[in-house]
Amino acid sequence: MTAYLAEHVEQVRRAAERIRPHVRRTPTLTTDLDPGLRLKPECFQVTGSFKPRGAFNAVLSLVEEGSRPPGVIAVSSGNHAQAVALAAATVGLPALILIPEDANPAKVAATRALGAEVIQEGITFANREERLREMMAERGFVLVHPFNDWNVIHGQGTVARELLEDEPDLEVIAAPCGGGGLLSGTAISAKSHRDGVKVVGVEPEAADDAYRTWKSGSIQTLTASPATLADGVRTTAIGARNFEVMFGNRLVDEIVTVTENEIANAVRVAWTRLHLALEPTGALPLAAYLSAKLPKGRTGLVLSGGNANLQTMATLLGT
Amino acid sequence: MTAYLAEHVEQVRRAAERIRPHVRRTPTLTTDLDPGLRLKPECFQVTGSFKPRGAFNAVLSLVEEGSRPPGVIAVSSGNHAQAVALAAATVGLPALILIPEDANPAKVAATRALGAEVIQEGITFANREERLREMMAERGFVLVHPFNDWNVIHGQGTVARELLEDEPDLEVIAAPCGGGGLLSGTAISAKSHRDGVKVVGVEPEAADDAYRTWKSGSIQTLTASPATLADGVRTTAIGARNFEVMFGNRLVDEIVTVTENEIANAVRVAWTRLHLALEPTGALPLAAYLSAKLPKGRTGLVLSGGNANLQTMATLLGT
Repeated sequence: MTAYLAEHVEQVRRAAERIRPHVRRTPTLTTDLDPGLRLKPECFQVTGSFKPRGAFNAVLSLVEEGSRPPGVIAVSSGNHAQAVALAAATVGLPALILIPEDANPAKVAATRALGAEVIQEGITFANREERLREMMAERGFVLVHPFNDWNVIHGQGTVARELLEDEPDLEVIAAPCGGGGLLSGTAISAKSHRDGVKVVGVEPEAADDAYRTWKSGSIQTLTASPATLADGVRTTAIGARNFEVMFGNRLVDEIVTVTENEIANAVRVAWTRLHLALEPTGALPLAAYLSAKLPKGRTGLVLSGGNANLQTMATLLGT
Repeated sequence: MTAYLAEHVEQVRRAAERIRPHVRRTPTLTTDLDPGLRLKPECFQVTGSFKPRGAFNAVLSLVEEGSRPPGVIAVSSGNHAQAVALAAATVGLPALILIPEDANPAKVAATRALGAEVIQEGITFANREERLREMMAERGFVLVHPFNDWNVIHGQGTVARELLEDEPDLEVIAAPCGGGGLLSGTAISAKSHRDGVKVVGVEPEAADDAYRTWKSGSIQTLTASPATLADGVRTTAIGARNFEVMFGNRLVDEIVTVTENEIANAVRVAWTRLHLALEPTGALPLAAYLSAKLPKGRTGLVLSGGNANLQTMATLLGT
């Protein structure tokens, strides 16, 4: 194991200890699809996605360091928002979340219900980074970035760490890739477990920046937020730290892309065969598996979350 | 513990050993709804419901006894059909399943895919018992009854046995009640674990024969198969053995009923908050819990299965 990997896996181990009182150890499931397949259903995590692992690790680390800030801030229209709101409330810090005006009202309500202050007025996908900098300067709140943050990456690494504790013989692990927080953490845990475990990131064909980044060797950016069912991976580029782990240090073997039809089919299979109510983003690795796009071998799928838009689900199921 | 209960719990223990190679130990889940709540999601069981526990115990017992019959036979339009088909195929016995003509084609296909012979022609809800006797006489096949069978009852008892191994301090356990196979087994495991555990059966208001049986002290029969979303509990009366366990020996404390709206709401909550794609029958205990119809205390819900009719689900989710 390289010194780089050894250092990061030690941080994942510490993250696992730090967050243990606040998150769930989700089960590993077997299925009727294939005796060699294992699922890590993070839809059963607190708030319905893996995001609290990274958010708790970041917020608890802030507080441990003694430099208790006046509050934390995040930009998110989805699962990261709820995760940061919960972690901040748990340690008694105010949380301010910037959510684009056109976001799903149910997710906004869920974030507010966890005690966070939500600002939506005038926030767009285009201007949100600028508004974030303004609000940080104004209040002195500390940013909890959704993926380009070491504490977040190490927290997300606890998913694959648990999966490999349960199933040490896995040969392939696939996880969704948006900004790369979950995939970076997955890669650290998998490659430190055994160098030969293949780590695969899955993203929608319509949001193939990570695929192009992998192929080109430098960070590629989408020109606009992509239109995809998998609304959890609509980030336009992976982060610098994520690039460093995934491609700079070659801890990710491959990025595969799936079509919107393949995502929709995977959601239906999750419902009908696996009995998991996944959100489309959470079904990305299943889509790659069902489309035979993953390497052969005993495979673990990280199913990242279940906070689906109900209207989308009803439509997918009715067809 | 009474001698009666001691004898039956020993049979559940043997069933657990017998079926272990063939069924899954489903996980126990915690939720964001209530820190005292525990779920036993049998939707993750082989074939998507708890039914293989009883079916395997019955079929394996037949074969163990050495009196290997020419085949097994069952009447079912749902989960029991698939369970018997799978158990029979596993031990290499032919299985004949009588399914009413108006059954869900997807369930018929799933049963055939497991290698069973399916007869539908001329089978109705009204004449199926008569046709069953004819077929048994003609072929010499042995009946695997869906609930009024000791091996089936003892197999179903392994669900609550596992739940209480994971969560020994539960004070209330609720399970769906149709013919009473699952509820009888649940009661045996729960009351032998600790006499004070309250065991509650849940059935639709539209199919309240078990409720009236409990109140009256004798088996009450519905005049027709009831119309309810919960199509897994449309039996018109519980079995004699189930009555003996549940009410004759007072191992069930209470039967509660839930309305169709309460069932529909529970399915939606299962999807949106629990991320479990349950069938309406599997959501019955959740419906009772959400409607505050269960006794207070640390509660375990036996969520019996996930083989939903997709069109029903799309309708429920879209409203």
